[in-house]
Amino acid sequence: MYDLIIVGGGPAGLTAGIYAQRARLKVILLERELIGGQIALSDVIENYPGFPSISGMDLMAKFEEHARGLDLEIKIEGVESITTDGEIKVVKTTEGEYRTKAVIVATGAKPRPLGVPGEKEFTGKGVSYCATCDGPFFRNRVVVVIGGGDTAVKEAVYLSKIADKVYLVHRRDQLRAEKILQEKAINSDKIEILWSHVLLEITGEGGVDHAIIKNLKTEEVTTLDVHGAFIFVGINPTTNFVDVEKDEQRFIIANPKMETSVPGIFVAGDCRNTPLLQVSTAVGDGATAAFIAEDYIDNLE
Amino acid sequence: MYDLIIVGGGPAGLTAGIYAQRARLKVILLERELIGGQIALSDVIENYPGFPSISGMDLMAKFEEHARGLDLEIKIEGVESITTDGEIKVVKTTEGEYRTKAVIVATGAKPRPLGVPGEKEFTGKGVSYCATCDGPFFRNRVVVVIGGGDTAVKEAVYLSKIADKVYLVHRRDQLRAEKILQEKAINSDKIEILWSHVLLEITGEGGVDHAIIKNLKTEEVTTLDVHGAFIFVGINPTTNFVDVEKDEQRFIIANPKMETSVPGIFVAGDCRNTPLLQVSTAVGDGATAAFIAEDYIDNLE
Repeated sequence: MYDLIIVGGGPAGLTAGIYAQRARLKVILLERELIGGQIALSDVIENYPGFPSISGMDLMAKFEEHARGLDLEIKIEGVESITTDGEIKVVKTTEGEYRTKAVIVATGAKPRPLGVPGEKEFTGKGVSYCATCDGPFFRNRVVVVIGGGDTAVKEAVYLSKIADKVYLVHRRDQLRAEKILQEKAINSDKIEILWSHVLLEITGEGGVDHAIIKNLKTEEVTTLDVHGAFIFVGINPTTNFVDVEKDEQRFIIANPKMETSVPGIFVAGDCRNTPLLQVSTAVGDGATAAFIAEDYIDNLE
Repeated sequence: MYDLIIVGGGPAGLTAGIYAQRARLKVILLERELIGGQIALSDVIENYPGFPSISGMDLMAKFEEHARGLDLEIKIEGVESITTDGEIKVVKTTEGEYRTKAVIVATGAKPRPLGVPGEKEFTGKGVSYCATCDGPFFRNRVVVVIGGGDTAVKEAVYLSKIADKVYLVHRRDQLRAEKILQEKAINSDKIEILWSHVLLEITGEGGVDHAIIKNLKTEEVTTLDVHGAFIFVGINPTTNFVDVEKDEQRFIIANPKMETSVPGIFVAGDCRNTPLLQVSTAVGDGATAAFIAEDYIDNLE
């Protein structure tokens, strides 16, 4: 029987683990795949205060080291469901079952597919959702990046250092990314921004050969010769295993104390209905969730 | 005319500065006294993820370096008032006046006096609110610490490494501090915890000689021979210069987007009505406030 189970080992979950361990709770952190979560796949993080420039993987290694230094128990194990048995929560995993007084859901979010023909077929064969994972395959080749937010623009800049040419296809006529990132993209002579365009289809023989795009203003359809397509058009929260109140995009709704609609189930980080998905905000969420969870557990006894 | 003025140079303000600078806003950060704020006075921080153990001053130096590396403009200047002139905010300081489209209030909070006889008289002469500032004066002497929260217990442990003996006077029969801190205090043979006691008065000739305390259960009054008294009984937010909605303790009320009751005035960190006052949460607040402020500024134009 645990005091607290933390589901997810990204910035929010690891921060909650640090706080819970310092609070001397009997706690375990369960992570399905990768300690550090999505951010560990990020080329460079330059806005987590204290680290002017660090790779996502290195930053997450520091978080993990911090948590493990406090003896946080971490297991690689996927959570399938969370149910309640009176005041107790039952966490069913790929390996078995845990009983706990409280749960913090910190499962983050994953890239959203665009849903165009060819996308699924060529995933892993030229279509990618992670530039740092797959970018190196495209040395001296041509790639297209879809999207206009922070991730899309950051990854386009990253890819421009590897590929010969990067098309950045964005449906609007301005980018939503941080201005500092926009400048880097606009000033790069390897990046060509195709404003007001959408991707219609990805085609090829065995791998990606073409991206078919449409100009939303002129309706003109163009075929780009590319070897890879990187899609960054938003994210879907990983929240289907838990039955608490969610918004229409399935992000979990919480109050400022990170309490969900179910007492004893708390939320932190990118899977929460939050205005900003960043390491900085995930860390704040994780600290708050663990602090409030401790209070909840104390009051049960 | 500025896009954004950040008032306060602690963790929340510096984080907001990092984000605002990356968003290429025309921004200035105004700090009255000390870059880093109250946390810069803290002996050791062990729960800001990524830094397993670091002094408050060193951590804040890293934050400042990060912000200055992005060319954030920082001035040592106290803000006296914030008023509105249509959609424009007018920030009056000790040095002059600034006009800006938006303001983030990140002024933090300061130690709360206990209000007992002798406290004011002996402040700076044995009564202190900062162990790292004044602790070294008490080498091989005897001090009393008042309070039972994180700060009180952490500072008692710190003082026990300098002083010969530390009395920890707490009005309840259990501590509220993190368990890991409690254990350190309870296991120290230099710290004597006086449960269910309150401080009545501080007396002395020229400096602190005695702390007069009362047992709340037996009503018994005892006189402790001490050379110093450290008071950690909570904090007051620094919010009197701005007229926005506040709670009964004068912490500023905001929604999850850090918007206050006045459009264009945002809040972040310890001066906000938040469940947890930590570097981790201040960083999350600062990032969100800057992100939402940028959106607000964009929509003004």
